[in-house]
Amino acid sequence: MISVRVLIRPKEGILDAQGKAVESALPALGFDGIEHVRVGRVVELRAEDDRSLEELCEKLLANPLIEDYEIEIL
Amino acid sequence: MISVRVLIRPKEGILDAQGKAVESALPALGFDGIEHVRVGRVVELRAEDDRSLEELCEKLLANPLIEDYEIEIL
Repeated sequence: MISVRVLIRPKEGILDAQGKAVESALPALGFDGIEHVRVGRVVELRAEDDRSLEELCEKLLANPLIEDYEIEIL
Repeated sequence: MISVRVLIRPKEGILDAQGKAVESALPALGFDGIEHVRVGRVVELRAEDDRSLEELCEKLLANPLIEDYEIEIL
């Protein structure tokens, strides 16, 4: 079995509502000097091999129209 | 400025509803040999320094009661 991490992020140019929400909350909480916040998902799993990981991302984990994904074998 | 990645995951023992949903969808989509799916969030941002990152996670990005976080400086 291999340990796999998939990072899923909104594509550049796609509105990232969660990232914007974090950015607008920062000043009121006293944080400054933080910018370019992007919020995505991380999926971690154990797989027998890496054969079907790309297909898994395309079909189930990510929405390839609006999200990019990155597969890391840990 | 530094580039920072924060991985936020449900704590061990906390129900991970999204992970369970992915696991139950796998057989119908023809994926086998995949298990232990955990779904969390990834937050990427640019910061002036790493001073307030832990506080940022505790107060805004994660819910420390039910989530663990991990800060990576990229």
